[in-house]
Amino acid sequence: MAAVARGQGFVLSRPVTFVTGNAKKLEEVKAILGQSIPFQSLKLDLPELQGEPEDISKEKARLAAIQVNGPVLVEDTCLCFNALKGLPGPYIKWFLQKIGHEGLNNLLMAYEDKSAYALCGFAFALGPNIEPITFLGKTPGKIVPARGPNDFGWDPIFQPDGYDQTYAEMAKEEKNKISHRSKALAMVKSHFAEAGYTFQMDTST
Amino acid sequence: MAAVARGQGFVLSRPVTFVTGNAKKLEEVKAILGQSIPFQSLKLDLPELQGEPEDISKEKARLAAIQVNGPVLVEDTCLCFNALKGLPGPYIKWFLQKIGHEGLNNLLMAYEDKSAYALCGFAFALGPNIEPITFLGKTPGKIVPARGPNDFGWDPIFQPDGYDQTYAEMAKEEKNKISHRSKALAMVKSHFAEAGYTFQMDTST
Repeated sequence: MAAVARGQGFVLSRPVTFVTGNAKKLEEVKAILGQSIPFQSLKLDLPELQGEPEDISKEKARLAAIQVNGPVLVEDTCLCFNALKGLPGPYIKWFLQKIGHEGLNNLLMAYEDKSAYALCGFAFALGPNIEPITFLGKTPGKIVPARGPNDFGWDPIFQPDGYDQTYAEMAKEEKNKISHRSKALAMVKSHFAEAGYTFQMDTST
Repeated sequence: MAAVARGQGFVLSRPVTFVTGNAKKLEEVKAILGQSIPFQSLKLDLPELQGEPEDISKEKARLAAIQVNGPVLVEDTCLCFNALKGLPGPYIKWFLQKIGHEGLNNLLMAYEDKSAYALCGFAFALGPNIEPITFLGKTPGKIVPARGPNDFGWDPIFQPDGYDQTYAEMAKEEKNKISHRSKALAMVKSHFAEAGYTFQMDTST
């Protein structure tokens, strides 16, 4: 199979490797990207880094591109509380794991301002030693006591602006229309369409 | 200059490189280790990692040993709130930077339990590809509104158990007697004394 994008761009000899070990994320990404970009997924043992969200995504892409030795797409998700100047941010995973939904609400006990934003950063690197490009999708909302199914991280405590439902309560298709991840992926999709990458794939992959 | 430790142990051809860019930390370490261990300090650009405190220290030592290509000592400090199951922990730097002393106190607004512990993890690696050894020093205390000089991180909001003063209010010598860092360094010192490493240094270093 060969997929050829229009334009004069860079030739990719392999499909883009989307680095994830999270089946739910892969499912969301597939639902949004559809067939527009040939990609495969791979779980890599990458170090998780501290820092500003965009820097974390970039560095992760750099490390992944070295390991994969080819084009990679990596993703990082943050949940940022405005009263806490963007924290827990990239560390939300640990906070969720240790203190749960109630604990996350409690972090804001001292503040009237319960506003927050969900941030998704994708970083795409064409290969090792090529500066990654980042795509940041942001969805504003607020932190609320947990409502809805409890099977996808902090979705039950995040209610996007303009909705009465939490992410967890929304239908998948509805959430995909406005989610931080879909916004970032839309940018990835546009970038691929505009950059004119040409895929010349080995049929054995 | 040659420093020779007793015993049958490993021969180090170079002094131990203590990885830090923080002059205050270097000062504290020197005050506690004194002349017992020949070491030099070096600022390295190491990635900051997410994870459990001990794992972070180990991984940092692994990465540093590769860069230095010799024996390294690295240090990481955490401030762990019991009500938050040990968080902010290794991410305290970002919380301090973004929300300050008042914000850190506010994180505990929902809880009666203001107890916390200061955790210092040293990791020592003899060289690249040698499993690092960790030394964890812990000092229990509680989080209080800031008191004392404001020139050393979160010291003004940490009051160790059994004291009426915060770390920031204590005399350096007093703090060094009970601090998380001094406890971890005492373990480092004992380890060096017991392991019988032999230093054969190049006089040019």
